Amino acid sequence: MPYEFKLVRRVEFIETDMAGIVHYSNFFRYMEATETAFIRSLGFSLWAGHADPPHGWPRVHVECDYKSPLRFEDEVEVHLLVAEKRPRSLTYQFRLRKLNAHPHVEVARGLVTVVCVTLSHGKLVATPFPKAIADKIEVAPKELLA
Amino acid sequence: MPYEFKLVRRVEFIETDMAGIVHYSNFFRYMEATETAFIRSLGFSLWAGHADPPHGWPRVHVECDYKSPLRFEDEVEVHLLVAEKRPRSLTYQFRLRKLNAHPHVEVARGLVTVVCVTLSHGKLVATPFPKAIADKIEVAPKELLA
Amino acid sequence: MPYEFKLVRRVEFIETDMAGIVHYSNFFRYMEATETAFIRSLGFSLWAGHADPPHGWPRVHVECDYKSPLRFEDEVEVHLLVAEKRPRSLTYQFRLRKLNAHPHVEVARGLVTVVCVTLSHGKLVATPFPKAIADKIEVAPKELLA
Amino acid sequence: MPYEFKLVRRVEFIETDMAGIVHYSNFFRYMEATETAFIRSLGFSLWAGHADPPHGWPRVHVECDYKSPLRFEDEVEVHLLVAEKRPRSLTYQFRLRKLNAHPHVEVARGLVTVVCVTLSHGKLVATPFPKAIADKIEVAPKELLA
Repeated sequence: MPYEFKLVRRVEFIETDMAGIVHYSNFFRYMEATETAFIRSLGFSLWAGHADPPHGWPRVHVECDYKSPLRFEDEVEVHLLVAEKRPRSLTYQFRLRKLNAHPHVEVARGLVTVVCVTLSHGKLVATPFPKAIADKIEVAPKELLA
Repeated sequence: MPYEFKLVRRVEFIETDMAGIVHYSNFFRYMEATETAFIRSLGFSLWAGHADPPHGWPRVHVECDYKSPLRFEDEVEVHLLVAEKRPRSLTYQFRLRKLNAHPHVEVARGLVTVVCVTLSHGKLVATPFPKAIADKIEVAPKELLA
Repeated sequence: MPYEFKLVRRVEFIETDMAGIVHYSNFFRYMEATETAFIRSLGFSLWAGHADPPHGWPRVHVECDYKSPLRFEDEVEVHLLVAEKRPRSLTYQFRLRKLNAHPHVEVARGLVTVVCVTLSHGKLVATPFPKAIADKIEVAPKELLA
Repeated sequence: MPYEFKLVRRVEFIETDMAGIVHYSNFFRYMEATETAFIRSLGFSLWAGHADPPHGWPRVHVECDYKSPLRFEDEVEVHLLVAEKRPRSLTYQFRLRKLNAHPHVEVARGLVTVVCVTLSHGKLVATPFPKAIADKIEVAPKELLA
């Protein structure tokens, strides 16, 4: 069963700031793109707005440690690992590596916890993940998460 | 009847890029903030997602001429003028001036055309502006738009 | 000589807004990504901040016509065509098509004019494109731009 | 000596996503705007790119807990508290409250650690905060940080 996913992106001009490096908030953009690709690879979607009821996976906690800057046109690999799985929440670990450096430097490490919610009368209500999704995701082996 | 609106903002760090200036896409952010404040000042909202049917004002045409760059912490005044009013569309002219320069330099000029739509079975359908809104907006005098 | 370039992207969650569609400002993000990939394919870079003097290609005019909305996870092809070439400026036409629709709908058409500048004493100064770049770009045939 | 700062903002349309709420990454935008306003209130700037050497305060760690969603046009108060002060780093706690709710709900709590760096031969190098800045900032009383 899947417990990891990798995505490679190239840093875009719009993602830089006046310090000449990628603005830190864009590291969450990279992580989100990887998470949605992971979910899509399992046959589901991060936000099913037209489902009845609409349901999605908003974040309740995010964090990121920045170790080395990224610059325009750098190639970054985002490695998602499922770190924890509960009935209503999932925690991912993300490792970002710069591919156009040798050896591949880890430039940042992130942690994101999402909960499954449905939209009920305009309110987001936590709910267990659908079995079809929960059955497809498992926690990564401990030695990978170390 | 109202035909203009002014908003003042200070350039944020996240809005800059590696060229050391405000990324051009953020000029549309400034224009949108001014337009929503204008609409709000009339008692309405740019997107009434919980109305029945939901209705809003998406853009069908935007443009911007850039004359002079903006930098971090610059103060910019965004001057909205209603340039054209039709049953289903409105066109705004925007003039952006840098307030921490003497005289106040016009740094950019924008043009934005929005249409009124309702959300029907997941599709956006053009519709006349509600009378309550249309009655409150008029076109700016020609000499101001010159 | 190159006069066109194509890039395919998938719409990301962060690019949507509360109307359930891609926020219009992100169409410029898609165009910019395509332009930088085009320039990179020729062996150059949109912003050479460490060159002496630093030089880049800021925008002086942008526009976009929106014909049909894009939604989360849509696949969009961005087709860049060189529409005009002058000593200090280039104008691109962009055509955005939705690939997960049959036939491929044109969802938007953009126009972007960039100028070549160097950074001199903190000021952006217009300058002719380096010959090595100018020699590699030509205007697209008229029938393609129609 | 200053150990806190408050900023009030109104949620913008561009900050929402298709779930109908503020995209979580924008909470960092709100925190950054508050931090830069705090630094500016002391007479300094988050990034002094034209200083010799250029110096700034990039982030090495950020995190945020999300408790309740924000929506278009909500008013949010961002309360910055200095949580830790070291020679080369500062840690801020941020509390975000929704002002158009009674009582004022805490919608999120963030933590951001920045380091002082100078730009040396294109590399960011950690360095002690200038004395003029360090002398002006103190850690908030423990009872406020609880």
